[in-house]
Amino acid sequence: MNRLDWNTLDTQGQRTALSRPAQSRAESLRAGVEQIVARVRADGDAALRELTTKFDRCVLQAIEVSEAEWSQAEARLSPELKAAIDEAAARIDAFHRAAAPQPVALDTAGGVRVERMLRPIQRVGLYVPAGSAPLPSTALMLGVPARIAGCAQVVLCSPARPDGRCDDAVLYAARVTGVHRVFKLGGAQAVAAMAYGTESVPKCDKLFGPGNAWVTEAKLQVSADPEGAAIDMPAGPSEVLVIADEDANPAFVAADLLSQAEHGPDSQVILLSPSAALLDAVEAEVAEQCAALPRADIAQKALSQSRLIAVSSLAQAVEVSNRYAPEHLILQVGDPRALLDDIESAGSVFLGAWTPESVGDYCSGSNHVLPTYGYARSYSGVSVASFQKQITVQEVSPDGLRAIGPCTATLAGAEQLEAHRRAVTLRLAVLEDAA
Amino acid sequence: MNRLDWNTLDTQGQRTALSRPAQSRAESLRAGVEQIVARVRADGDAALRELTTKFDRCVLQAIEVSEAEWSQAEARLSPELKAAIDEAAARIDAFHRAAAPQPVALDTAGGVRVERMLRPIQRVGLYVPAGSAPLPSTALMLGVPARIAGCAQVVLCSPARPDGRCDDAVLYAARVTGVHRVFKLGGAQAVAAMAYGTESVPKCDKLFGPGNAWVTEAKLQVSADPEGAAIDMPAGPSEVLVIADEDANPAFVAADLLSQAEHGPDSQVILLSPSAALLDAVEAEVAEQCAALPRADIAQKALSQSRLIAVSSLAQAVEVSNRYAPEHLILQVGDPRALLDDIESAGSVFLGAWTPESVGDYCSGSNHVLPTYGYARSYSGVSVASFQKQITVQEVSPDGLRAIGPCTATLAGAEQLEAHRRAVTLRLAVLEDAA
Repeated sequence: MNRLDWNTLDTQGQRTALSRPAQSRAESLRAGVEQIVARVRADGDAALRELTTKFDRCVLQAIEVSEAEWSQAEARLSPELKAAIDEAAARIDAFHRAAAPQPVALDTAGGVRVERMLRPIQRVGLYVPAGSAPLPSTALMLGVPARIAGCAQVVLCSPARPDGRCDDAVLYAARVTGVHRVFKLGGAQAVAAMAYGTESVPKCDKLFGPGNAWVTEAKLQVSADPEGAAIDMPAGPSEVLVIADEDANPAFVAADLLSQAEHGPDSQVILLSPSAALLDAVEAEVAEQCAALPRADIAQKALSQSRLIAVSSLAQAVEVSNRYAPEHLILQVGDPRALLDDIESAGSVFLGAWTPESVGDYCSGSNHVLPTYGYARSYSGVSVASFQKQITVQEVSPDGLRAIGPCTATLAGAEQLEAHRRAVTLRLAVLEDAA
Repeated sequence: MNRLDWNTLDTQGQRTALSRPAQSRAESLRAGVEQIVARVRADGDAALRELTTKFDRCVLQAIEVSEAEWSQAEARLSPELKAAIDEAAARIDAFHRAAAPQPVALDTAGGVRVERMLRPIQRVGLYVPAGSAPLPSTALMLGVPARIAGCAQVVLCSPARPDGRCDDAVLYAARVTGVHRVFKLGGAQAVAAMAYGTESVPKCDKLFGPGNAWVTEAKLQVSADPEGAAIDMPAGPSEVLVIADEDANPAFVAADLLSQAEHGPDSQVILLSPSAALLDAVEAEVAEQCAALPRADIAQKALSQSRLIAVSSLAQAVEVSNRYAPEHLILQVGDPRALLDDIESAGSVFLGAWTPESVGDYCSGSNHVLPTYGYARSYSGVSVASFQKQITVQEVSPDGLRAIGPCTATLAGAEQLEAHRRAVTLRLAVLEDAA
């Protein structure tokens, strides 16, 4: 980890300190994904089979997971894991229901009723990666809000292993959350299949979920095409920023940093503290704990791009964090709520010593599909709202039109939109004639 | 207008009947916009001046509207128009406040507090077109929710006329809604300036507003670049779908169709009705009213791509409408609320004879920046939420961690994320030692 002092850095040094591993859309990546998308659009299932053999080293029989496979997966799963998935799903359900948007109705003038109604996006596609390990938790984080929203068709893609099977826990999580159909597809080809549809895979209106650079590039491409599909958000590698004071437990801080670092070699972890002693202690703890991890090599690579930064105060730490806009923000300080008001940008925030990031990754109830790579400046994590449309409705009575018609006509006149004006004045004339 | 009967069309015919004017991202458009964006990034203000001279035939002195210009604009404006802008702003404010997201707090288990807090997107950029006519109403529709959200920096770009001035009403609307700075910029160059920043124009985190094909393409490009900016939604030409029954007033229906058609030659209007008599009457009314419009030539072009479609029932009309997913949906039927439950996709819905679309365009209180081109299947119109981030927060007590720690550890184990598991078990061990 790189040790820096924020207040001795110049402007460029501060920028570098908060820079993320480059995620430029390399021309080769863009062209490669364009090719895959074009092949899937042209050849449908045949392209999917061929690409899956090539990239996942798996010869697909059926592309869709069968009823028998779902049952077998459930039968193979340990009762303990099933119970944990059920338990996590219940808390995710509780929080997402509480945070779901509500209908609104208001009279903005006498006889002018304005409402907002909620409708599920009809056809949604969920992507659950299984690169270094399968992620049943992601199936929960996408499947639960889709079910609450009431989406009519919920499709999930997750790559099969070379033996042709999807992960048992992913399938169980999909079943628990009411996902309707699962396809053994990964990468850009899965995204293309859900965006455009094939003989087997139904076309979806919006796609969700994290993925590697190929998946992300494919999501960007299909979302820019009116024939394609909307997406939840762009995504980059996972990241955490921890703010800790002198009383923080260095072992806890180190464990949280490492649980981000083990995600992938391009994950990024940053620790900000006004206490040099704490920075020293965490550095030592990280080295010790990392050595004992099965994924130590991955974590080491991530740590090599990561930073321990001395700041002058917790207030300055919050300033720096807002500039970075971390996906995960952990406040391991005596009074974390005192800092909360000043937090401007973050995906999800974890308060105090007993709230490791991993509880939010799995089962506190909040969503773990969060904006990375600085997107927390403008995007929010996935929620029920991500699976819905908010449709406004208005109903104006004759009295209502008498009240707001003149304002409408004046503004339409100013914009030289005469037909807009006449749609009002013609009605007002009818009302006057009738009076 | 083309007259069709839905039930005599085959699958391809039905698809064609609901097809929109092509909006393919032509390679020339993409390349042209890429060039403009690259020039603005490289040369900043100098590029903006040059491009503005080229495209807007306007030699800019200052790029930013000065305090004196704001005052002069306000002084020039008629009291009637000022009052109409104030009145519209007040109703837009009332509805958007009522529909704004609220914070949420919930215990998902004893000692496990999960919250959602709201934070404004700090720096937002609003685009207000002034192509065929300036649109002060769009300044209201973007400025009001930005103000309610509390965005720290609200920037607005609108192209100047050849005389170097921005429209007076746009400036007044910007002032009324608390926009902080206005720049005399249009087109792809305005989008690039707000996405990347120049010497004069501050960089923004998210861009909003409608525009022509160049603006839309530029928004798509900057939103796909992590260094760029997020966008509200892709946008295409404006459109309306009207469902009318045999008792609808043909003059009203025709007026609503025309107020959409006058927007631009690529606007699209569709009328669905089970009544042949009503379709006949509307067709005659459209011809008569259109002839009297100042923008008759634009409306004529739009009408040439538009359709009067006979359906077998109002239920079938709703089915067809859901398939089309119109930006504006007008229900000119005896009992419009009876159809509302079955509406799946639309930007905004207008109920009954006395609710012309133009009231929603200006001052009923709902937003007029809405998803077009079928995007209503997956996108919502602009609202306060569009200017905010929803950040989740969790705080777990020692008892809380005892309650949900085991579930977390089990799931982390299943995903082979050992450091995630240890971040929990290490804390539980400390709690056990202390007990």
